[in-house]
Amino acid sequence: MSEPKSKSDLPPGEIPVPKAVVSRLSLYLRELQHLVRDGHQRTSSSQLGRLLGFSDAQVRKDLAYFGHFGHPGIGYRCDDLIKAIRKILGTDRDWPVAMVGTGNLGRALLGYKGFSHQGFRIVAAFDIDPQRVGATIEGVRVFHLDQLTQVVEANHIKLGLIAVPAPAAQAVADQLVAAGLEGILNFAPVTISLPDHVRQVGVDLAIELEQLSFSVVSRANTNGADGE
Amino acid sequence: MSEPKSKSDLPPGEIPVPKAVVSRLSLYLRELQHLVRDGHQRTSSSQLGRLLGFSDAQVRKDLAYFGHFGHPGIGYRCDDLIKAIRKILGTDRDWPVAMVGTGNLGRALLGYKGFSHQGFRIVAAFDIDPQRVGATIEGVRVFHLDQLTQVVEANHIKLGLIAVPAPAAQAVADQLVAAGLEGILNFAPVTISLPDHVRQVGVDLAIELEQLSFSVVSRANTNGADGE
Repeated sequence: MSEPKSKSDLPPGEIPVPKAVVSRLSLYLRELQHLVRDGHQRTSSSQLGRLLGFSDAQVRKDLAYFGHFGHPGIGYRCDDLIKAIRKILGTDRDWPVAMVGTGNLGRALLGYKGFSHQGFRIVAAFDIDPQRVGATIEGVRVFHLDQLTQVVEANHIKLGLIAVPAPAAQAVADQLVAAGLEGILNFAPVTISLPDHVRQVGVDLAIELEQLSFSVVSRANTNGADGE
Repeated sequence: MSEPKSKSDLPPGEIPVPKAVVSRLSLYLRELQHLVRDGHQRTSSSQLGRLLGFSDAQVRKDLAYFGHFGHPGIGYRCDDLIKAIRKILGTDRDWPVAMVGTGNLGRALLGYKGFSHQGFRIVAAFDIDPQRVGATIEGVRVFHLDQLTQVVEANHIKLGLIAVPAPAAQAVADQLVAAGLEGILNFAPVTISLPDHVRQVGVDLAIELEQLSFSVVSRANTNGADGE
């Protein structure tokens, strides 16, 4: 949230990094992985910027938060930059993940291939519905929520996904915290309170659509005058 | 993206509003709807702030972008504020929505109840798989993508959701644009290019998890020194 201090004061890795920069890192990583898949070994700030709709200055500035990756006249080596970004994002390791809730959304997330590409492996699912407990969905066993602590410890799980109805989300979050999780991705459309040491990212799909309707409506209102 | 100009220069509604403010509006709306459901008629900037983890000054500042809603000593009437925010976000009307892709994620989105609560109604789904075309999923008919323009026009669809594999996303987006859509919510893990007049919001679930692993890892690195 806070503005970055002067970068020269602090070594890379200790500079507070604005949220927007971190989310752009994920976009750079995604494009770099596509470039490698398409056979490219090198890229440049202008190519990355063009692919993502950012200026090349923006790309260079973002990456400079974390050290010096580029080589003048050569650009970036895709593999090196991928490795560096994965290290920054913490996805240079495997993250076993717990999934709570196996309704429609939970099931879709269990089948979502994009997670494992980035090192996130859903290793256990939890529910309280006797019809669901004991089932295997997309290769993932569904446990009763009562077994949470035990399964979390056995699998060294640090991250959890919440895909339960809104009224149940806070109680589930409390149980995840008690079981020792350090980060929660919350898909329930409600704000949950967590202790300071546990990190939270919320994804509310209706809110994403609202952001879209806002930009469509405000564009119509200003008749396109306010481009972005 | 740009910084807001001095608010006194422009009437409410014509001030460029930072993205972060718009996404907080959605959070205010969600909390207000919960408050009303729980029987509350009035609220205050401090109550809203407390529920969301923002300061009351932040709440007042955000809402001031759009006009004067509060009454000194009384606070906000929930219904009035809900109505005002829905108007700003464009969800004071119904949005018929098209869904392209009926795999795991597409099906989950078709069954997601949170959309319709905010006025988004998925009225038609599209696929190219003959096994899926003609089916009805969660009450929504699946059409062949070839029928897109016709169905979009008949249903006055302005917004579309893309839930197809990444390699197909750009071609689908081009078809949605050609059919006259004005906004696209893209769940495919790839950046798509759209003409200036079409709005885009991207949701990459793996990126959300990366943001979480980043904050867990950076917390561990700084030993909790850098609170937020």
